[in-house]
Amino acid sequence: MRFVEIIEKKREGHALTKEEIHFWISKYVEDKIPDYQVSALCMAIYFQGMNADEIAWLTDEMLHSGDIIDLSSIPGIKADKHSTGGVGDKTSLALAPMVAACGLKVAKMSGRGLGHTGGTLDKVESIEGFKIALDEEAFKKQVEEIGLAIIGQTKSLVPADKKLYALRDVTGTVNSIPLIASSIMSKKLASGSDTILLDVKFGEGAFMKTPEDAQLLASTMISIGKKLGRDTRAIITNMNQPLGNAIGNALEVKEAIATLHDEGPEDFKQLCMQAGALMLLQGKVCRTKEEALELLQENISNGKAFQKLVDMVKAQGGNTEQILHPDMLPQATYVTEIPSKQEGYIRELHALEFGNLAMEIGAGRRVKEDTIDYAAGIVLHKKDGDYVKLNDSLASVHSNQKLDEEWIQHFYQCFEYSNENVEKTPLIYKTVE
Amino acid sequence: MRFVEIIEKKREGHALTKEEIHFWISKYVEDKIPDYQVSALCMAIYFQGMNADEIAWLTDEMLHSGDIIDLSSIPGIKADKHSTGGVGDKTSLALAPMVAACGLKVAKMSGRGLGHTGGTLDKVESIEGFKIALDEEAFKKQVEEIGLAIIGQTKSLVPADKKLYALRDVTGTVNSIPLIASSIMSKKLASGSDTILLDVKFGEGAFMKTPEDAQLLASTMISIGKKLGRDTRAIITNMNQPLGNAIGNALEVKEAIATLHDEGPEDFKQLCMQAGALMLLQGKVCRTKEEALELLQENISNGKAFQKLVDMVKAQGGNTEQILHPDMLPQATYVTEIPSKQEGYIRELHALEFGNLAMEIGAGRRVKEDTIDYAAGIVLHKKDGDYVKLNDSLASVHSNQKLDEEWIQHFYQCFEYSNENVEKTPLIYKTVE
Repeated sequence: MRFVEIIEKKREGHALTKEEIHFWISKYVEDKIPDYQVSALCMAIYFQGMNADEIAWLTDEMLHSGDIIDLSSIPGIKADKHSTGGVGDKTSLALAPMVAACGLKVAKMSGRGLGHTGGTLDKVESIEGFKIALDEEAFKKQVEEIGLAIIGQTKSLVPADKKLYALRDVTGTVNSIPLIASSIMSKKLASGSDTILLDVKFGEGAFMKTPEDAQLLASTMISIGKKLGRDTRAIITNMNQPLGNAIGNALEVKEAIATLHDEGPEDFKQLCMQAGALMLLQGKVCRTKEEALELLQENISNGKAFQKLVDMVKAQGGNTEQILHPDMLPQATYVTEIPSKQEGYIRELHALEFGNLAMEIGAGRRVKEDTIDYAAGIVLHKKDGDYVKLNDSLASVHSNQKLDEEWIQHFYQCFEYSNENVEKTPLIYKTVE
Repeated sequence: MRFVEIIEKKREGHALTKEEIHFWISKYVEDKIPDYQVSALCMAIYFQGMNADEIAWLTDEMLHSGDIIDLSSIPGIKADKHSTGGVGDKTSLALAPMVAACGLKVAKMSGRGLGHTGGTLDKVESIEGFKIALDEEAFKKQVEEIGLAIIGQTKSLVPADKKLYALRDVTGTVNSIPLIASSIMSKKLASGSDTILLDVKFGEGAFMKTPEDAQLLASTMISIGKKLGRDTRAIITNMNQPLGNAIGNALEVKEAIATLHDEGPEDFKQLCMQAGALMLLQGKVCRTKEEALELLQENISNGKAFQKLVDMVKAQGGNTEQILHPDMLPQATYVTEIPSKQEGYIRELHALEFGNLAMEIGAGRRVKEDTIDYAAGIVLHKKDGDYVKLNDSLASVHSNQKLDEEWIQHFYQCFEYSNENVEKTPLIYKTVE
């Protein structure tokens, strides 16, 4: 098999065979196909796409390129969820304890943030001592005993995706639905859970810009799940404005804790409830959505959901005092209130720009090697549809350096006002099963 | 400037700036941009194309990546021609002496053959002692003194194209008109001639499959020539059947010699005459096409065109006895006549297949490292429109090994017959100026 012929075949818009995809991934992982051929193929895929079979074969090949976690020794259904990433997305930190408190086992492998998007690993690491590198045995033991663990992906998991993603990242071939879908799903499938809930975001703060693209990505991943025998469902959510109010690692942990105390922002709670209900249905803990929503509310109200977070932090070596007393989480030197210079209804908040602004003050990484300032970030006081009077605080900015004028000007540009009443945009666009 | 942003820009269908193209080519030649990024860009160009400015800038950047031959010390207009390659294309061997005999100076750098296409360098090297590696001074001296030289491209000419072409060859990005056009034109422009005549071939034996694609490639190259200040014109010719009768290196030299004696195949002579007339117009040797055609015929009839070939072979160290007595050129051990098994009019001869068949018996290279059997090849006795009786010889096959049954079966498949009279397909589709 000559790889250049595989490139040409895809370039001409033909479907690749299972054998051709096997040849590609297996030889690429062994360094027997050079990067320059694979990047050309990825660009051809960007333009010509892949059919459902090709995407499932690609996922399956990547999935089998390294170790696969076997969770079958843990009794019951093991659940996983994945978000395609956004600004202020601390969902796992509240949702996982919520569903675990309802009796579902959650075995979650998370990633780090880059650019304007945050990562769950960075958020949990703002808790003193929290270990994200458990070995497989410890991971399984914790899921079995307390029903919940959030760890980093082990190095031996899906090496093909690591290699391919690094190449796509520098060759303009990230934004291809077949490649995104197979990348995400190969990692999720290799992590060994029985069910997968996907939170596919659209909007300016997300990879997918439109609800239609997000739905296409979601249905592509669901099709992979079906072909490879996992219950996969998705919710499509709006990322045109940040999720919840907090952006920044320790600030988001605080917001997740507040949500587990039923004191979090309404939009974020709704997302956790709807996603949680779907996970409980997937895990056969509940039979109807109404039942699931009730059970979730019950476990928030009785404190069991919050207790699950405490249990997990304890099991992973974190300082539980910081969870019980969130003021003990990293605190910034400066907290700057930003007064509104206008009156009116907030019409839009630009999520992507807030993500970049938070990154600039240390809450995120510009490049992989950057270190993170866990205390830094933004807490919004106004979101879309809210009425703002002159000098009302739009947000508190937490930083360990004084804010410069340019940053503040940029901040103001993230808000758009209207003189007329503005309806809040619904956060959840739809669910796909 | 980040190269990934240039890739993404092209991927989205935007035009690159002069600065971006300069960054690409200059850094790539310095090995400061990796192959895997450039192959992704080439694939994006395959799909999104380039506008006339981009193509001219790309050509100009490549042209300036190495040495540029300066022919200005030679008095008069220096002419070059280039064929996009085909089967049986020995045009330069007859055409260059013809126009040189008419007083035009021809400074030609040629290439080698690969796959089913032959290369002029291989053809001249079937002449004993013929040197294709002259240094710039010797090249210029010869053009000045005898008006004609055919040499190989020097190593320092257009290094960017060498590097880029090698990459495109293995990444499925050869067949892109902007990339083909800039590759050809950068080499032609760096060779220093004042005028360029392009023979752009279409059909199954050519890179371009349709006359429309060939015309597009031709007008793209003419546009580059215009933007970079060289008189560039083109003829579009049919390569659905081999050019002339001979395929194979020494056999084609013989056919070129016969043509200079006015005893060559009609289609090939017509191509040399029409191309020659255009070159004489470009070189301002003649004012009208009629005048040019007359002058060419005169120089064939009076033997001066043939004498130019002898002069060139002598100047480049070749054995002129082989030109004066073509039977002294390399001869194959076996000459096999292939009798027709059918009667009828020849409707089609598949050029690509003849090219491959000739390659299989040693006349061409499967891979760059293969050596060539100069004596091997095919001389067709029948071409399209000819009537063939049972057992008429279709061709003589010259080989140094006995032909196997499979090869002969394959050979028969290259001919298609018709019971009805078939018109000869015109060789010259049109000229573009």
